[in-house]
Amino acid sequence: MSKPRQLIAAVDMGSSSFRMIVARVEELNKQSQIYIIDSLREPVRLGAGLNEHKQLDEASQERALNALSRFGERLRSFKPSEVRAVATNAVRVARNASEFIAKAEEALGFPIDVISGVEEARLVYCGVAHQLPIGQGKRLVVDIGGGSTEFIIGDDYEPDVMESLYIGCVSTAQQYFADGSIQPKAMKNAVMAARKEVAVLRRQMIDKGWTHAIGSSGTARALAEICVANGFTEHGISAEGLRLIREHVTAAGHLDQVTLEGLKPDRLPMMPGGLAVMSAVFEELELEHMDVTDGALRQGLLYDMLGRQHNDDMREITVAQFLHRYKIDTQHAEKVKVLAEMLFSQLLKQQPLLKRQLPMLRWAAMLHEIGLSIGHNGHHKHAAYILSNADMPGFSKREQLLLSTWVLAHNGKLGKVSEIANTAIQWAAPMCLRLAALFLRRREVEALPELRVKLQEQGVQLSVPKNWLLDHPLTQYSLETEFEQWQRIGLNLELVTRRQ
Amino acid sequence: MSKPRQLIAAVDMGSSSFRMIVARVEELNKQSQIYIIDSLREPVRLGAGLNEHKQLDEASQERALNALSRFGERLRSFKPSEVRAVATNAVRVARNASEFIAKAEEALGFPIDVISGVEEARLVYCGVAHQLPIGQGKRLVVDIGGGSTEFIIGDDYEPDVMESLYIGCVSTAQQYFADGSIQPKAMKNAVMAARKEVAVLRRQMIDKGWTHAIGSSGTARALAEICVANGFTEHGISAEGLRLIREHVTAAGHLDQVTLEGLKPDRLPMMPGGLAVMSAVFEELELEHMDVTDGALRQGLLYDMLGRQHNDDMREITVAQFLHRYKIDTQHAEKVKVLAEMLFSQLLKQQPLLKRQLPMLRWAAMLHEIGLSIGHNGHHKHAAYILSNADMPGFSKREQLLLSTWVLAHNGKLGKVSEIANTAIQWAAPMCLRLAALFLRRREVEALPELRVKLQEQGVQLSVPKNWLLDHPLTQYSLETEFEQWQRIGLNLELVTRRQ
Repeated sequence: MSKPRQLIAAVDMGSSSFRMIVARVEELNKQSQIYIIDSLREPVRLGAGLNEHKQLDEASQERALNALSRFGERLRSFKPSEVRAVATNAVRVARNASEFIAKAEEALGFPIDVISGVEEARLVYCGVAHQLPIGQGKRLVVDIGGGSTEFIIGDDYEPDVMESLYIGCVSTAQQYFADGSIQPKAMKNAVMAARKEVAVLRRQMIDKGWTHAIGSSGTARALAEICVANGFTEHGISAEGLRLIREHVTAAGHLDQVTLEGLKPDRLPMMPGGLAVMSAVFEELELEHMDVTDGALRQGLLYDMLGRQHNDDMREITVAQFLHRYKIDTQHAEKVKVLAEMLFSQLLKQQPLLKRQLPMLRWAAMLHEIGLSIGHNGHHKHAAYILSNADMPGFSKREQLLLSTWVLAHNGKLGKVSEIANTAIQWAAPMCLRLAALFLRRREVEALPELRVKLQEQGVQLSVPKNWLLDHPLTQYSLETEFEQWQRIGLNLELVTRRQ
Repeated sequence: MSKPRQLIAAVDMGSSSFRMIVARVEELNKQSQIYIIDSLREPVRLGAGLNEHKQLDEASQERALNALSRFGERLRSFKPSEVRAVATNAVRVARNASEFIAKAEEALGFPIDVISGVEEARLVYCGVAHQLPIGQGKRLVVDIGGGSTEFIIGDDYEPDVMESLYIGCVSTAQQYFADGSIQPKAMKNAVMAARKEVAVLRRQMIDKGWTHAIGSSGTARALAEICVANGFTEHGISAEGLRLIREHVTAAGHLDQVTLEGLKPDRLPMMPGGLAVMSAVFEELELEHMDVTDGALRQGLLYDMLGRQHNDDMREITVAQFLHRYKIDTQHAEKVKVLAEMLFSQLLKQQPLLKRQLPMLRWAAMLHEIGLSIGHNGHHKHAAYILSNADMPGFSKREQLLLSTWVLAHNGKLGKVSEIANTAIQWAAPMCLRLAALFLRRREVEALPELRVKLQEQGVQLSVPKNWLLDHPLTQYSLETEFEQWQRIGLNLELVTRRQ
């Protein structure tokens, strides 16, 4: 008996081009196989639209929105759980990212996650690993994007080192070859500037070691095509080939004069930048040869979606690692999680749409004391800092920000998180976490009474047995002062007591 | 043969009173003994001068400066290494702390360290432990100050748990008994508000356990004197005694009407606040009895000074713990430290006064990669966050801020640390750290050439062998771009090459 066929899609809003793939999932012997049935590419060059104030300019936004509308048309029959769209460096660094993402989500018709560089590295490796045979030893994967470059060392499906640097083909092209001229001095400086960044990783990478290097980006494929078409090497990219290409383009002196076999016209503007970054990678990591593979991030997204559907969610692994790394009192965190979830599940009955916040609530509860690793006073603020800045594989930037805000709201004054009360009932989950932390403040093992909550207009009614409350004057006092805190952000907490 | 006698002094700028002790140090069988020969107290009530904007008002600053001038007069013949002055909660939370501290240092004639609550707890315990017999089992020490209360559980000289909460006798008196009236409801709320804070520590404290409780503050001594003078208990403070005092003062209804045996008039204004906090501690930690001991923080300061003189500096221990806790690459940190120190020692020859920065430079070098524990990109910023917010026993707030700024400056753009170039040659140590990190960027094991540096007007001349530089174009490039960064903050880096 075979399950019904499922289609899934991944959208990669890169700094140089936007890409979408649609794939069919087939389950065979409990293994999922992915067959790509459609792929689209739009040369948006979003990274080139970042002006000196790190704002995405109008023209690039328009190119992006047009491309996304076309993707959206193709995806019209898809459910949200079947599509994952991510944006990488250009949006990561843009100051006007949130306005742009709102418009972009409307154009595409699906939520878009901005992901961190390290998360990008993880997904790239996931995509590459699924395209190559297993059992070939340790590989170094280098993915040169428009604004960032990811480095991964891994073995089979397991990434071991994941790093991301702020160097890319679009940003380098803009900085050193903006007017189209390609001076030898500019090329040398561009290579040096990129080497300076790569140098930081060199020791760690070389200590780990690898048996072969793989390039997974459009830059790598374009350079390999030139190397092969000109007979510089049989396959892939060679150090000697790169040197010859550099000689050719600096001798030409200008983009218009570059006539290399195998160079596609739409790749031309970014080519000198990509060439400089790739040369820096070769020189600093002492590579002689690199093979190339097809697009990586978008394939990685598809496999990651499959993982989430099969209870193999990277985010669970990250949370478990953080519990260990930051020495969190897991027993207490677990108790707070159970209570928060119990309260939240009562609200879900009235508002089933909230259900998709449940995993985030669980993670926030498990991690709500992470700030104690820095210090006790104001530990909720330290937690917010860690959760919004740490590399958290599997989590998008937005998810990290949400975790950070919810954890910030679990204790202390609420004024600083007033925005959580603004949108729909975004506040329901964090306020359940806050109530759970309040009831468990003393970390006692004694049984709590049955707590009943229900949603009210902009607030919650909380019902507690009268006798229990009289026996616990400190909790009663805390709940009374809690009322004022909720009011500060326009929420109502109504405390009612009942006989039993 | 006996060494010459040494005098040392400690100044404690507490939120309720300022105190100074002068002691004679005698070395006997390689053990140091301290004999207090002089002690001064000034009822400054600095904490009461904090207005609603958390600014220390003029009147309280004037009281403080007058008291410090009198202390300063007594200390006129002391060397800087013989005096340690610290400020605690009132200054810790004051928004205008840095202006105040500048004036205060001038009045006293010695540097003043603002210390964190946990550091205060450590020093309090150190003072208490040296006043009590050893081998008595685990003790709980509670130090109720004007604006914060410290809790420590320890055994002999070893503190095990150190915590600090933002509750104190002055702040509680101001919030609940500001007009002098003492209503039963206000007393109940004051106790509850304090219990709510103590509740957070309850589980941890009770799990650790203790055999006896010690109160070390003026509040504890004043309450004990009342308890004993009224026959509520034979010695110390009893739970029943606290209840009877509460009954008495709420029956009196106003400060003016309180007539309790053993209550000194100058303690009266803070008494209801201290009573509420002490009652909360008794109730939440289920104490029946507490003994009291003489002043703790100032004695702790003296013993801590002795430790620093005897190579038993708490700061060394903290740095070692952080290397472990944050999994810092100690080998690399050590290499950077050695190089930074080598550069700095050359500058010391021209400017011997810089020498006192040497320990800070060593610690900054050891900890400069601490931010990698959060994430790679911008790790110097994460490091600055951790170093300015973490509990770092032995370090004052100012020292933490200095470490944080120096580490922030070790990499990346210098614009954000422009203040380091403003004062005298404060920049010399951090810039040596930055140069060391630059030369060791690749973490290679190869030997570096001899680097020669000398101070110039607002800058440094760096001399490197020419051949080595030609062999290391990446370092050459980095040094050239480094020049621009230094210029941004008004510093000059002159690179010269020499034959060998």
